[in-house]
Amino acid sequence: MTRWPLPPPMARAIELARQSAEQGEVPVGAVVVCNGVIVGEAHNAPRRLTDPTAHAEILALRRAAVALGRERLDGCELWVTLEPCPMCAGAISHARIARLYYAATDPKGGAVEHGARLFDQPQCLHRPDVYSGMGEDLSATLLRDFFAARR
Amino acid sequence: MTRWPLPPPMARAIELARQSAEQGEVPVGAVVVCNGVIVGEAHNAPRRLTDPTAHAEILALRRAAVALGRERLDGCELWVTLEPCPMCAGAISHARIARLYYAATDPKGGAVEHGARLFDQPQCLHRPDVYSGMGEDLSATLLRDFFAARR
Repeated sequence: MTRWPLPPPMARAIELARQSAEQGEVPVGAVVVCNGVIVGEAHNAPRRLTDPTAHAEILALRRAAVALGRERLDGCELWVTLEPCPMCAGAISHARIARLYYAATDPKGGAVEHGARLFDQPQCLHRPDVYSGMGEDLSATLLRDFFAARR
Repeated sequence: MTRWPLPPPMARAIELARQSAEQGEVPVGAVVVCNGVIVGEAHNAPRRLTDPTAHAEILALRRAAVALGRERLDGCELWVTLEPCPMCAGAISHARIARLYYAATDPKGGAVEHGARLFDQPQCLHRPDVYSGMGEDLSATLLRDFFAARR
């Protein structure tokens, strides 16, 4: 388990992932931070919202953009509990997120260090700085427990 | 130019792309069809909605999911005037779209036959059947004129 305090945005993302599981949604949480302040947050909600695009990252980015009144989130950070999928990695690039922090890696669905490796594509117009691993055990345990309970 | 009538969903997508340009948004339109009926449609609107994810495809998929009351659009078609980007291709896969029709290709931003070629990734869990080219000239002309007017 994590042996030092998580940075507050990742601790909050983990808490959102926990809430996601309680609502029967895949436990992933995401937080957008601008100048040290949370400006958008969400957990996965495709079932509750009847929305195939309602991953935590997409919802957090959309809420942050509305909160800041601009569609490009230059200078902002996205903290998320799981390696983003191609859809979310693409959205992160469109939103011009400056720094991406994710907890657990996702060899099956991730598109940052797996699969399409979207930010490494020559086509990619904006690449955030990427940091991973903080909160990995907590996030992976939430996901494992969620899917184990459904088998 | 196109020498035969476009299928109605693509004609509608082109019309939506035209409306997009009139509103100062990149001219891309998208239509979701279920059993021959349009159940969701949209044009690009990231500026108007202050939403970095508001590509035509994402909005049309979200509207179709709400209209049908289900987050997975099994059996549905997506008709769009431009080759989808990685974000939209990812959303199309999440939404389980059965058939994807797009007009113009997008060597710079597309992720179907260019760049990440998302549906060809071994990771990709759902691949739609893909058809392209119908309405290509109309769509490409709208895009060219839009960007030329802004230079």
